[in-house]
Amino acid sequence: MAGKFQVRFMPDNRSAIVEEGTSLAEAARQADVFVKNLCGGEGVCGQCRVKILSGRVDADDQSQAFFSQEELDAGYVLACQTEVHQDLEVLIPPETRMEDAKIMVSEAEEGAEGLQTVPIVRKIYMELPSPTMDDNISDIARVSRELRKRLGWHSYEISLSCLRRLSEKLREAEFKVTASIAKDKNRYKILRIDQGDTSHETYGLAVDVGTTTVVAQLVEMGSGRVLGVAGRPNQQASFGEDVISRTIYACKEGGLQAVHEAVIKDINELIGQLTSEKGISPQDIIAIVAAGNTTMSHLLLGLLPCSIRLEPYVPTADVYPQIFAREIGIQINSEGILETLPSVSSYVGGDIVAGVLACGISESPHVQALIDIGTNGEIAIGNLDWLVCCSASAGPAFEGGGTRCGMRATKGAIEKVVISNGEVSYQTIGNAKPRGICGSGLIDCMYELVKNKIILPDGKFNLDNKDPRLQVVDEIPQYIIAFAEETATGEPIVITQSDIDNLMKSKAAIFAAIKSLMDYIGLDFDQIETFYVAGGFGSYLDVEKSIAIGLLPDIPKERIKFIGNSSLTGARYCLLSETALEKSIVISRSMTNIELSAYQPFMDEFVAALFLPHTDRRLFPSVDY
Amino acid sequence: MAGKFQVRFMPDNRSAIVEEGTSLAEAARQADVFVKNLCGGEGVCGQCRVKILSGRVDADDQSQAFFSQEELDAGYVLACQTEVHQDLEVLIPPETRMEDAKIMVSEAEEGAEGLQTVPIVRKIYMELPSPTMDDNISDIARVSRELRKRLGWHSYEISLSCLRRLSEKLREAEFKVTASIAKDKNRYKILRIDQGDTSHETYGLAVDVGTTTVVAQLVEMGSGRVLGVAGRPNQQASFGEDVISRTIYACKEGGLQAVHEAVIKDINELIGQLTSEKGISPQDIIAIVAAGNTTMSHLLLGLLPCSIRLEPYVPTADVYPQIFAREIGIQINSEGILETLPSVSSYVGGDIVAGVLACGISESPHVQALIDIGTNGEIAIGNLDWLVCCSASAGPAFEGGGTRCGMRATKGAIEKVVISNGEVSYQTIGNAKPRGICGSGLIDCMYELVKNKIILPDGKFNLDNKDPRLQVVDEIPQYIIAFAEETATGEPIVITQSDIDNLMKSKAAIFAAIKSLMDYIGLDFDQIETFYVAGGFGSYLDVEKSIAIGLLPDIPKERIKFIGNSSLTGARYCLLSETALEKSIVISRSMTNIELSAYQPFMDEFVAALFLPHTDRRLFPSVDY
Repeated sequence: MAGKFQVRFMPDNRSAIVEEGTSLAEAARQADVFVKNLCGGEGVCGQCRVKILSGRVDADDQSQAFFSQEELDAGYVLACQTEVHQDLEVLIPPETRMEDAKIMVSEAEEGAEGLQTVPIVRKIYMELPSPTMDDNISDIARVSRELRKRLGWHSYEISLSCLRRLSEKLREAEFKVTASIAKDKNRYKILRIDQGDTSHETYGLAVDVGTTTVVAQLVEMGSGRVLGVAGRPNQQASFGEDVISRTIYACKEGGLQAVHEAVIKDINELIGQLTSEKGISPQDIIAIVAAGNTTMSHLLLGLLPCSIRLEPYVPTADVYPQIFAREIGIQINSEGILETLPSVSSYVGGDIVAGVLACGISESPHVQALIDIGTNGEIAIGNLDWLVCCSASAGPAFEGGGTRCGMRATKGAIEKVVISNGEVSYQTIGNAKPRGICGSGLIDCMYELVKNKIILPDGKFNLDNKDPRLQVVDEIPQYIIAFAEETATGEPIVITQSDIDNLMKSKAAIFAAIKSLMDYIGLDFDQIETFYVAGGFGSYLDVEKSIAIGLLPDIPKERIKFIGNSSLTGARYCLLSETALEKSIVISRSMTNIELSAYQPFMDEFVAALFLPHTDRRLFPSVDY
Repeated sequence: MAGKFQVRFMPDNRSAIVEEGTSLAEAARQADVFVKNLCGGEGVCGQCRVKILSGRVDADDQSQAFFSQEELDAGYVLACQTEVHQDLEVLIPPETRMEDAKIMVSEAEEGAEGLQTVPIVRKIYMELPSPTMDDNISDIARVSRELRKRLGWHSYEISLSCLRRLSEKLREAEFKVTASIAKDKNRYKILRIDQGDTSHETYGLAVDVGTTTVVAQLVEMGSGRVLGVAGRPNQQASFGEDVISRTIYACKEGGLQAVHEAVIKDINELIGQLTSEKGISPQDIIAIVAAGNTTMSHLLLGLLPCSIRLEPYVPTADVYPQIFAREIGIQINSEGILETLPSVSSYVGGDIVAGVLACGISESPHVQALIDIGTNGEIAIGNLDWLVCCSASAGPAFEGGGTRCGMRATKGAIEKVVISNGEVSYQTIGNAKPRGICGSGLIDCMYELVKNKIILPDGKFNLDNKDPRLQVVDEIPQYIIAFAEETATGEPIVITQSDIDNLMKSKAAIFAAIKSLMDYIGLDFDQIETFYVAGGFGSYLDVEKSIAIGLLPDIPKERIKFIGNSSLTGARYCLLSETALEKSIVISRSMTNIELSAYQPFMDEFVAALFLPHTDRRLFPSVDY
């Protein structure tokens, strides 16, 4: 019979009692200790390194590839591949821990004009006439009559629970009450009736449910004023770093609930943080608008994401129902609603719809484009007449994955690099000792390497270059950005031929997607009035270098605008404007989605873009290396 | 400190452990034993007679008026006025028990023509095309697209819980599924998605929630076929026999929940009975339409009825929201809906709206009238252009209350009486020994007494009449219908001057209401094409005698139609027809309600009708006594 054992995690000194045979990764989850997990527990990413301090575990041949002999001797194992068969004490080393990421909480300020500011939930204070024999219509008819006068809409729905309290509420308040009204598609709902005038105490929350980070903004609904913003790493990361691995986890038995609850917990934590900072009660929050990619939206609502990942890439829903936030365990007012912004397709989600809305692309007479670069690059192009979009799998390179020394944009990440006369200078996040290179640092590297002819336009290291930082180790060329003695880990930070190859594929995929979409609509780059670059990664990009490596199209720099977290901005617009929320549905429905995985011109463009800056040099006239 | 005591009720041999000081009536409720209760526990109706078999209770001076000295010596007390202070054994005598009432389950067959038979919940079997790369819209969009083709409506809502199961359901069923679709006002909801073709297994329930009885009809939704009908006494009677006393109970602390649950229990019992008889599962019932008076509808939904009873008579709602039946604890399919038919006002409820619909009054080019006689008489008159209605308080006389020997139409009730040459012949329900007189028997009595000149047209006993059955006891004249030796109780069954006075007021109120409404619309009785008489009481009325005492207007008998339970019929129409349900709302909204309690012409008509048949004899040309 299987027993139960205690696993203690250091340095947190937290422990869990688990069944025999449980994985260390699962034990860590139960102990509420974060362990990195890029592959979703498949044992292939090597990110969940932990060290056994006391107790014995069985060796796992497959995982040994991730460790040096010294590490194996010291007790290093992969948490996801190691089972518990006795009491254990386990150290989670720094590289396996989650650190505060550089969370993008700033946002676009474009496109806000022209939106009517009628929030999606509004509070109407009413002093109703008391019933008389000449005017003895029902309580709900009395409330509806006044709402008709005030709002002009002819019909109002009410839930049974609200109706049950109506009679007492009206009489206790001597018919002076505040009604909270929400619009849902083409109808109005009376969410609650409160005694007296509570119309000045209405708050809403805009949430960007990102794969990496969840950011929430607390908004005063009447004035539209942003009271505060807070972000935290998406705790779903413990089930897999990227969308695919989380999806795989969610589609295992019982997995969906765990992944779903993780993001709900994040949102509740952010609500707790923001409301306590501002001295208001979560009960005063009456509405939430959430934007995320299609998988994040599914996981937020507890919808199975399994068919999103597999051809032919079908999500459960594109437009999501308005729900009570309590239905998914979000702790705001019990009648508070949650709107999830609509998706276009499995790989173009509500975050992009929010971005298009935030940038005002669908209102503009001129053609504009939006690009959001992450593991996937989503691109939307259009104007007030038409919209097209696509999503290209860029691989994890820009987010710190898939490269030897890649890391997320957290403390110690090299984010800027300049190479000049054989000297490398760099800048790290938090000015800490370097621990790795994040996306913007890698782009800088690539540019600096090609400009300094350390790599050639085909992306291969120029072994004729005699720069001493260029070395060949085990037949693989690599370039040393930071020597071992400079780094926090004591290991050199390098960029290898394989890293360059991956980066090349990533940038080629993004550019090919943009180019394919432009060709699809029959326009040239110079016809794009504004090129918005969204997302946390985007904000730290060096425009010139991004163009120079052929990631972004070669258009005048002033036409490229970094707009930060446009997903959050769009969500806030929808919170503050019924019209914006309706527009988000129109945008999602009217956007033509090009499925690149089945689109031959994209394949051709991809191959053509596997060059620095591009095989067709005419596309990059301003590039001078 | 108060202790707890056991109270055992015989002959059921059921017991309850109650706190010291609890009333016997409450103890009976806790033991799930029925005790009659006309006044709602106020100690004024004397119906809750019980006999203490062992143990002692304190004498209650006020209640003693209801008992003879022999009864007091034998241990008779009123259950509602007697507190428990020690262990007791209590007998509930037959007169205090509930017996199966003569429950009206037959119904109108008028007005069914012209209704489109699109049931309010329909099941659509769909063989959806599997997703391909060229057709990879979301699952919900795929379902909606097919529904659009099949139903023509452009948009479909879905609950989060249904959406959560959609992806798996579709794939497990290889995209061959049945969608259950409900219409709610102007929108369509997808209630559930089932695997395979379940479209032939759709059942619905029409329910008449009467104050006295609850009747349910099991209907096959596709064909409209009635599979079965069952009724049972409304168990709310244990909280008060009539609407007013139940309302008073419901407005006490905790009272609403108890009264609400009682009727839910009734409906669940009827569902259990009907489904087990027909060999189907309650899970196969997907919709319920309920009709009742305004108070019954409020109690069904758990809405406070308190302001209905008090001037200016304001209900919480007139149109009720569509809800899931589970929300109020009704045990059918978890996604099954419940529609409650709309009311017109506090005293003209969904049962009358259902009746107007069932009779087709609002479709008729000719003027028709509907009257439902009970404790209140509700009257609706109109045609396809206009509708007016009112409600008159008739008092409890027609339902067996307020008269010395009155009783409900249950076994042993005298329902027909003929007096001829000093001889009285009568007929009882179930041909049992007589125990009292029910409403139709009292109307017969009144007619026979005035025809035989035992009472005079002013309703007073003619003491010049030497009929030996006419006696004066304690200065009150009374007429013996059945001598003591003929009856089940060993007491004579009599009708007293006070009984006649009460009956006179009841019939005057009903007639005055009809007459006031006719005058209001400016029509004469001969302009009424059909005069429908609804309700359990109505079906047993003798038309000629009812006209002769001035209860019903003097119109040709063939124009008067007894239509039985038109509330149930109307509810079934709404179950089977979206159009009918929509019409019910139009009827409720378009009916002009005359509030008689504040209407002077009604007062005048009432006084004028306190005569047999009426002070204005010209209104009753056919009456020949």
